[in-house]
Amino acid sequence: MAKNQLHIIKIGGNVIDNSENLHHFLKDFSALKGLKILVHGGGKIATQLSAELGIEPKLVEGRRITDIETLRVVTMVYGGLVNKNIVAQLQQAGNNALGLTGADGNFIRAKKRPVKTIDYGFVGDIDEHSIDPDSLARLLDAGFTPVFCAITHDGHGQLLNTNADTIASALAVALARLYDTTLIYCFEKKGVLRDIEDENSVIGSIDPLTYEELKEEKVIHSGMLPKLDNAFTAINQGVSAVIIGRSDELGNLKLGKAFGTKLSRQ
Amino acid sequence: MAKNQLHIIKIGGNVIDNSENLHHFLKDFSALKGLKILVHGGGKIATQLSAELGIEPKLVEGRRITDIETLRVVTMVYGGLVNKNIVAQLQQAGNNALGLTGADGNFIRAKKRPVKTIDYGFVGDIDEHSIDPDSLARLLDAGFTPVFCAITHDGHGQLLNTNADTIASALAVALARLYDTTLIYCFEKKGVLRDIEDENSVIGSIDPLTYEELKEEKVIHSGMLPKLDNAFTAINQGVSAVIIGRSDELGNLKLGKAFGTKLSRQ
Repeated sequence: MAKNQLHIIKIGGNVIDNSENLHHFLKDFSALKGLKILVHGGGKIATQLSAELGIEPKLVEGRRITDIETLRVVTMVYGGLVNKNIVAQLQQAGNNALGLTGADGNFIRAKKRPVKTIDYGFVGDIDEHSIDPDSLARLLDAGFTPVFCAITHDGHGQLLNTNADTIASALAVALARLYDTTLIYCFEKKGVLRDIEDENSVIGSIDPLTYEELKEEKVIHSGMLPKLDNAFTAINQGVSAVIIGRSDELGNLKLGKAFGTKLSRQ
Repeated sequence: MAKNQLHIIKIGGNVIDNSENLHHFLKDFSALKGLKILVHGGGKIATQLSAELGIEPKLVEGRRITDIETLRVVTMVYGGLVNKNIVAQLQQAGNNALGLTGADGNFIRAKKRPVKTIDYGFVGDIDEHSIDPDSLARLLDAGFTPVFCAITHDGHGQLLNTNADTIASALAVALARLYDTTLIYCFEKKGVLRDIEDENSVIGSIDPLTYEELKEEKVIHSGMLPKLDNAFTAINQGVSAVIIGRSDELGNLKLGKAFGTKLSRQ
């Protein structure tokens, strides 16, 4: 029997920090038929709140550290302010959203990142085996749309700040066992560009073979490499496709038009 | 067929503001067998955060007003910080908690309180008919323990600050259609006291008849009257019993010992 389709969509700061962008995106997200999950980062609001509270950003060797005060802020902003306002807007649009951290329903457990050269503080690396697809399927099949923020827990009472991209891909891999899963990363560009200066040079699709070619031609380099490597890792673990594109073009997906760059096995 | 038992427990500031009290309570709550829902207020943390952010408490004729800045704080603290830390601790204790506002799952809708003499701002009065017991039953029966904070929504994208006692009783009334529902209010006293000066003068049980007698004798007056009136209103709408007691004695319930004051039909 064919599996049901599931879309997992990740949005970041460029959507969350602009209420107009966010509203527009949430309308398109609501209009998307079928099962879906939203994953969001936090954007600038957490940084602003930290500044208002006089909490200095902690950086060690250029890396951001989540100390206990920052974790508090992140829990308030990602888990409270941003998550619940997204949920309220989705409800307005007729979508039965349910706002979650990885602690809720024990859906995503993580381990506090071990201290090697840098102590990242309360940052969690996801334990991928902790994600129980059946448990999430119970929510999806009951008609709820899970909305995850970038917070997990360690199962021992500790919340952990966790990368939203990683949450999205871990969910996609786990749920690919039950659903025909498409993972969509919204970012500031229309897709993977052949010419970084030209927004209209979006590469429509990439498979493992063309990916190797594009790397050899140095069309894809630096910042995009880890993104695409992670995408193909997810695909190798059962995710049907990964799409990278701009949030304001999500509406195209529903209309069957081209949207972003589609990565898939073939 | 006999209905399944459900406990709905409400805790307030005296539990939330003290991490030791909270931890102790959550252990007892976790140990309580059967279906259960937790409802929590916010405590002093929201007031403290407002002060840190330089948001002045707004009072009109002695009543607290929820302006847009206060709503932001409340959403961060109740919906984020307090709710998610409670969820993480319950998970640690082996309880599959799911932290919610009334917006999540569209479980509780409210109307922004109409402006008469006072404009309360973003305060919601619950639309009791909005609570769909079947929808909540799907979560309960799937093994989740809902943890509600004191926030609802209006269905049009607006979050609303809402009294936690009222949320607890509205949930109890709605769910009494499906479950044998006991509503438990934890407060600072061991129960309804015959002598306000004597913590050991707890009245074990009150029914409508003895309630009238206690009012005539002026044993119950002022602050306790609305609490008990509301409790009997819930009982008249199908809630099996309302218990009023101190959170650190909740453990007695599991042991079958006396806990607080039990209000019931007979």
